[in-house]
Order: sequence, then structure tokens, then C-alpha cells
Amino acid sequence: MSEEKKLTPRGEDFAAWYNEVVLRAELADYSPVRGSMVIRPWGYGIWENMQRALDDMFKATGHENAYFPLLIPLSFIEREKEHVAGFAPELAVVTRAGGKELEEPLVIRPTSETIIYSMYAKWVQSYRDLPVLMNQWANVMRWEMRTRLFLRTAEFLWQEGHTAHASAEEAERETLLILGIYRKFMEEWMGMPPITGLKSDSEKFAGAVRSYACEALMQDNKALQAGTSHFLGQNFSRQFDLKFQSEAGQEEYAWNTSWGVSTRLVGGLVMSHGDDAGVVVPPKLAPIQVVIVPILRGDDSATAVKEKAAEVANRLRELGVRTRLDDRENLSPGSKYYEWERKGVPFRVEIGPKDLAQGQLALARRVTPEGARRKQFVPEGEAIAGMPDRLEDFQRELLESAVRRREEHSYRGVTSVGEVKEILDATGGFVFTGWSGDPAVEQTMKDVCKATSRVIPGEEFRSETPPENCISGDAPSRMEVVWARAY
Amino acid sequence: MSEEKKLTPRGEDFAAWYNEVVLRAELADYSPVRGSMVIRPWGYGIWENMQRALDDMFKATGHENAYFPLLIPLSFIEREKEHVAGFAPELAVVTRAGGKELEEPLVIRPTSETIIYSMYAKWVQSYRDLPVLMNQWANVMRWEMRTRLFLRTAEFLWQEGHTAHASAEEAERETLLILGIYRKFMEEWMGMPPITGLKSDSEKFAGAVRSYACEALMQDNKALQAGTSHFLGQNFSRQFDLKFQSEAGQEEYAWNTSWGVSTRLVGGLVMSHGDDAGVVVPPKLAPIQVVIVPILRGDDSATAVKEKAAEVANRLRELGVRTRLDDRENLSPGSKYYEWERKGVPFRVEIGPKDLAQGQLALARRVTPEGARRKQFVPEGEAIAGMPDRLEDFQRELLESAVRRREEHSYRGVTSVGEVKEILDATGGFVFTGWSGDPAVEQTMKDVCKATSRVIPGEEFRSETPPENCISGDAPSRMEVVWARAY
Repeated sequence: MSEEKKLTPRGEDFAAWYNEVVLRAELADYSPVRGSMVIRPWGYGIWENMQRALDDMFKATGHENAYFPLLIPLSFIEREKEHVAGFAPELAVVTRAGGKELEEPLVIRPTSETIIYSMYAKWVQSYRDLPVLMNQWANVMRWEMRTRLFLRTAEFLWQEGHTAHASAEEAERETLLILGIYRKFMEEWMGMPPITGLKSDSEKFAGAVRSYACEALMQDNKALQAGTSHFLGQNFSRQFDLKFQSEAGQEEYAWNTSWGVSTRLVGGLVMSHGDDAGVVVPPKLAPIQVVIVPILRGDDSATAVKEKAAEVANRLRELGVRTRLDDRENLSPGSKYYEWERKGVPFRVEIGPKDLAQGQLALARRVTPEGARRKQFVPEGEAIAGMPDRLEDFQRELLESAVRRREEHSYRGVTSVGEVKEILDATGGFVFTGWSGDPAVEQTMKDVCKATSRVIPGEEFRSETPPENCISGDAPSRMEVVWARAY
Repeated sequence: MSEEKKLTPRGEDFAAWYNEVVLRAELADYSPVRGSMVIRPWGYGIWENMQRALDDMFKATGHENAYFPLLIPLSFIEREKEHVAGFAPELAVVTRAGGKELEEPLVIRPTSETIIYSMYAKWVQSYRDLPVLMNQWANVMRWEMRTRLFLRTAEFLWQEGHTAHASAEEAERETLLILGIYRKFMEEWMGMPPITGLKSDSEKFAGAVRSYACEALMQDNKALQAGTSHFLGQNFSRQFDLKFQSEAGQEEYAWNTSWGVSTRLVGGLVMSHGDDAGVVVPPKLAPIQVVIVPILRGDDSATAVKEKAAEVANRLRELGVRTRLDDRENLSPGSKYYEWERKGVPFRVEIGPKDLAQGQLALARRVTPEGARRKQFVPEGEAIAGMPDRLEDFQRELLESAVRRREEHSYRGVTSVGEVKEILDATGGFVFTGWSGDPAVEQTMKDVCKATSRVIPGEEFRSETPPENCISGDAPSRMEVVWARAY
């Protein structure tokens, strides 16, 4: 395979582009196990940076990490009726272990509410033991029929937070606190600004009272559910006997929340910023922020160029810039450029004999603002000292551009099903309409427009003028809702 | 349960002490799933610090993290004959998923050589693609009949490194590089100095050519295998067709290594340093290095004491000390002391009205050197500024004391099986003897002494005078070997 073989352009076939870019940027690969993928070092490095940022935010708000068993007795999953209805079709089941048939089958966790709340029930006696604020980083398994790298795989990696509180109000506050953390992370680290709000009853988590979600718009104008935060009420605490003695001496059931984001975020990042040359990784999440490529001419300048390249790498590292010196000898500079562009490293620094003579570095930015030149020659000192600012600018511009794209494809004041269909057929995007809250309308939208209700937007995302009528035309609007075709 | 209920003393029943201390220090708990445990935040926090330290060392030596599937086709495991013989009895098998029987059963990874080398075979074509140096942090499953918290559980967390090289020499160097990293980590972070060396053929990893191991001596003078590094030769590359074109243009099989440490290390840490009051966590791994307990008298000094406690906490944090201010209002200072001692926080700072008046802090050290006083009153400024040094001293003393303990229980120049048995019955420890290399001798040692060959020690651990005869008395010694009863 030629290194320079071009990707299918996004405009031609977005789905084909996505698969190609994930494989050729070496983010992930297919495995011999149906539905399971391999996350390669470049993809895993991005995930590690995501983990670090989220983990810091969880800990700063009082959460602790723990680890619960991978295998859950089938009878646990079956205890909460809506929960089992939602997850039963996707379970992977261990029936044999240690050479024997098991008396009770064990399922590989599709999510851990049941096993975790059974443990909390053991640890919590009194209101003094509350709140319990735990998170785990783990693999989970949901046997999907149609899989897509990062977006939908049988096994995926995620974090799942599980909390227990003495009051409904406190649990609801926790749910919203986490929703805010997710939004902040997606905006400030990923440059992927979501709309946040409430899920409709038909779209909520199996077992939740209320589900909140972050919905982000991809470049093909389809929605990606990127994170969810659930208020579980007492649904699980009643099934797992998670009780506490209140300050007033009463025995009460605890109030729970659960929330998670997964390696799906890596797919969201690719579909938010990637272009026809490859992935674009926001600097805050890039395992390598600057790659240095020495240009060796095969004459006696080579040693000086190599030394300068190493020196520049060290000086950038001293400024806290994650820098890779690509001194591989079997590859041409051109091949290196293609590779790092495909992988989405924000800046490339080229150093050749001419640059050395002129005391300059050639800087190539992975994405340039409209009208700006791709490659700039900058005096060495300024090129190095200014790099942290350049990375910040790059990060900010990715977010700005994604916000602009989302707003350009948010359609408000739409009042008929036909109009929604027209918009979604023509360009896609988020369509804001009124809704009576009747689930029958969701079914109509699915049938006619192939769209689902993504979210009942939170205050900051609602239209200035609230819609008067339900999109069905049959009833007054009780709430605004966002429709989209979705991953 | 009274908070102050004493633990079973180590001298009375070490195994009972261990279980109690793990549960009551809230490192881990039993789960409803047979053989699987829950790692609670205090235990997981220690594991996270272990991960961070090891991960930094792996990355500093050129390794990258990745993630491979949890489920492995049974046929993969079966390809390497010794491998399957070693792991078959312990497999957990998924036979049903997504509501259907699977055509081929999938096993939950007991270790990932097979799935990982099948992927490397896809990625590696030429010597230019080598070496491949990857690691993954993951859960694995080995269905054990007799489980012990942290030491032996069906599911455990670990890291597994897998590398591929163009030559046997390079792979062997990698194996030893990692063995050195493990040893350094165990000494400098855990204060748990292992003996390192080669495993005998009967004790090596199923599928390895040679296995190296770290063996540490616990306080009950039993050995704990704490980390292993395997030279796999071409055993797996031949089965998974992991070939490359050499620089000379020949097609050759790659040379592999694999290596891992697990959450078992947390158990090793407990059994190395714990005492009858609880766990002792070395400062470098302690999630909390200093806990501050304000002593409130219920008079008007309370506000000033609280303010001072918060100020001291902040000043310690500014020095990089991981500090917890324990201002819980429902617990007496005494209960807090017991709790943090049980959990093994290295230093406790008490602040009461009297300390405030005298500008001092009361420092209690979790472990004191022989003859030193447990609690010291130190002028506030000096108490704070000196804390990083005190933590370093504490860390160093733990290692020194563990080295002393190991040396006191290392028996060299032993020449008869009876003598070995006598030593192991009386005190336990590491017994160094000569060995012919005949596996029959290992069987005798098992039958007579209940001991296994732990390691053929590396040069730095060998006796000054090499043993002349095999411990069997039947043959000359070909190598020195260390016997012990082991976990």
C-alpha cells in the first residue's frame, strides 16, 4: 500500500472516509474477534489524555476510583425490570469456567449498576456514610449486531460513575454537576461543543428516572450521543436493599446516579475535526503536539541539522510541549509529513540546512485559518518560545469552528414534519421544534424523517421564542426538542 | 462493629491478620461473584500510584500503551501447546452472546500473548517495523479454586507488556531491562526488595523459553512471586506467523517477550510492612501521605484550630505533600487515629488549642525506628518545611528494614534436604543450595519440605562461595537455587 494513497474524501462518502482514517491514522484496527477492536497506541494515547483530564475533574469534585467485578450474576441484572429489558439482548454470557458448567450463568458487565449497588448496600448503614461518590475505569461488553470502530463495538472502554445520596435533590444536583463536567471537557479539551439536556422517556437509560445527555454534531451533520448522566431515583436501591438510617432516625432508601463516557469519544473527535488528509487532534489531547522532521541532504550539513533538531526538541519539551523528534532513517521527509498529518499532530517543524543558515524554522500547522499560509518561516527563538501560545490558538480555533458549524446547522422555528424531513434530507443537522411530549410523535418522526429526539435542550440551548405548537400540528407544545439523525 | 476492635496479631495467625487488615483498612472486599473481589478506593488509590510509577518507567524506555480484546477465540489459546496446557484448566468461557450460542467459544483472556501476536503479524512486515514495544493495562481472568484477596483471585488487574524483536539477543535484553525496572520499582517505591533471577523449567510461564522473576519475602517468611518477565523465543511467532523481512532480505520469525505485574503487588505491600495496628503504606505510594486531625474542645478555640488545620494542609500541599484534612464532625479524634493507622497513612498531624498556643504541631509517625518516640511536638514552621524529608526518611527506612528482614531470613550454605526442612519448619525464609538441575529434586523438595524452587538467583544475589553439591546429595551442583514456601 502506498503511504501517500489518498483517503476517500469526506464529501464523497463520509462513512468510508471515517473507517479509512481510523485505520490509516493507526487509531484502531479490526481484531479476529467479531465486534471487538484493537486500540492502537496513537488512539490509546488520545484516550489516556482524555482519561487524565476527566479523572482530574472527577477527583476535584470529590469522587474516588474503585474497581468492581467484570462478571455479574445473571439474577442481578434481572432484578430491575426495565434494566434487564434494555440489556438482555446484548449480553455475553459465561456458562463454563474452570472446566465446569456454572450453576448460575455470569454475564460480562454491560454496565455495573447492579453489582455496584449490591456492594454499597453492604457499606452504607447511616446518613454519615453518604454520599458515596465512586467511579471506575473499565471495559464493558454489549453484543451489538452492527459495529463501527470506536462508535459501536461489542467491547468498549469507559468510565462509569455511581453515587448514592441521602436525598433526591442532592442526587439530582450530582447528575447535573457531572453533565456540566462532560460539557466542559468536550468543549475545552475536545473542541466538540455538545448540546446538553434531558432525554425523552423512550430514549432514556434502562432503569433511570431521568437521563441527561451531551449530543454533538458531526461533520456529516449527524448527532453523536457523547456522554450521559442518569438520575436513577430509588429504582436500584429498592432492588438491592441500599438503605440508610437518616439523621431523623428513619430507615430510607438511598438515591442514586450513574454517568459515563467511553472510547466513543475518540470517534467523535475524529468526526468533529478530521479532514481529507486525516485526523486532527486538539493540542490538549494530542500525544504529540509538535513533530520535528530534520531534512538531511546527505552532505556535511547533516550533523549540524541533527544537532539543531535535537536541541529544538529539548527546548520545546522544557516549555512543556509534547514533542517527537522523527529521526527515522528509512523514511523520506515527505513520507513523514504524510504520516503525521494523517495522525493529526497539530504542528510540524522542519529543519534543513537552509533554515539552519538563516536561523529559522519552518512551521507547518495541521489546520490553517481561512486565507492563512500553511507553512511559515519563523526565527528560531520566536518559533520555540511562541509554541505554547500557538497550541492554545489552535485549540481555541477548533472549538470556534465547531461551534460555528453547529450553529450553521441548527434549525430553529421549524413547524412541520415535512420541513424537518426536507432539512434532514438536504443537509442534516439539529432541528429544534415544539413537542407535546407524546411518544407517538417520536414514532412518526422515526418513520417519516428517520430522526430521533436527541435531547430536550437545557435552558442555555433553547430558542429565544418558545415554540407554540407540537411538530405534529395536533397539540400545543409542552417543550422544545431537538431532532436529528444519529449514530 | 467497634472501630477499635483489635486485629488478630500477625504472630498468632498471619493469614487471619492479612484478611482482616485488607478488609478493615478498606483496601478490598469480597464480592457476590465467586473468586472476584472489589477493590475499594483506598486499595485502588495505591494501585493507581503503582500504575503511574511503572507506566512512567515503561514509557521512558520506549514502550507505548494499547488495548486488545478481552475475548479470545478458544482456537487461539490452543495453538501453542504448552500455553494451552498451562491455562486450559483456568479458563472462563463465553458460549452465548446476543441471545445466541456462539459458533466458536470465546475465552476471557487469562493473558494476551495469542491475540496480541496475531495482531503484530498483521502490522509487522519488515525489520523496519521492529521492535514493537507495547503494554496494556487490563483485567484478566484465571478461574482459581482457592482465592485470597489480592494474592489469588479469579479476576485481577495487571499490566502485560508484549514485544517483538528482530533478534534473540535484543529480546533477551528487553526481558532483563524489564526485570530491572520491576526490581527498581519494588525497591524504591514499595520498599519490598526482591531476589531476581531465572525460574526453573518446571516453574516457568506456559509457552516461555525462559522466565525471570522477582521473589519477595513476606513477614511470615513465605515467598511471593511479584513480577515475571519472559523470553518467549519464537514459540508464539511461529504459531501466529509473525514474520518479517530481515535487513539481509530473509524472511524470519520475530522474537518475543512478555512481562507483567498485577494487583497482587498490593497484597505484597501489605504483607511486607503491615503491623498489628494495620497496613503501612510507603509514602511514595500512599494516596494520603499526611492526615491532619484537628482537636476541637467545644470551647471558643474551635474556630482558630480549624483555621490553623486548613492553613497547615494548604502549606503541605504547596510542598507537594498529599494531605487530607480530616474534619469529619461525627467522629472523635481517637476514632480517626485508629482509622488512619489501620489504613497506613505515614504521618498524622494533630492540632489542638494547646499546640496553637505554643506554635507547635504534634506529629505521629505510623512506624517509628527502634527507640524513637511515636509522637513528637515540633515547632509549626519546621514541622511543615521538614515534611518532604521526613517522608523520604520513612520511605528509606521501610526499604532498609525489609532488606534486613530478608537477609536475616536468607540461609546460605545449606547442604541437606533435612536441614532445609528444619529451617522452613522453624522460621521459613529463602534457603540457598546447590542444584543439579534435575526436576526430580524439585519433586522431592515439594514432598519433603513443601518448598518450591523460587529462583536461580542472578549474579548479585548468589552466595560468595558457589555450592559444590546438589541439595539431593546425589550429584554435583550445576547452579545455586533458592527454595521457599510460597504464596
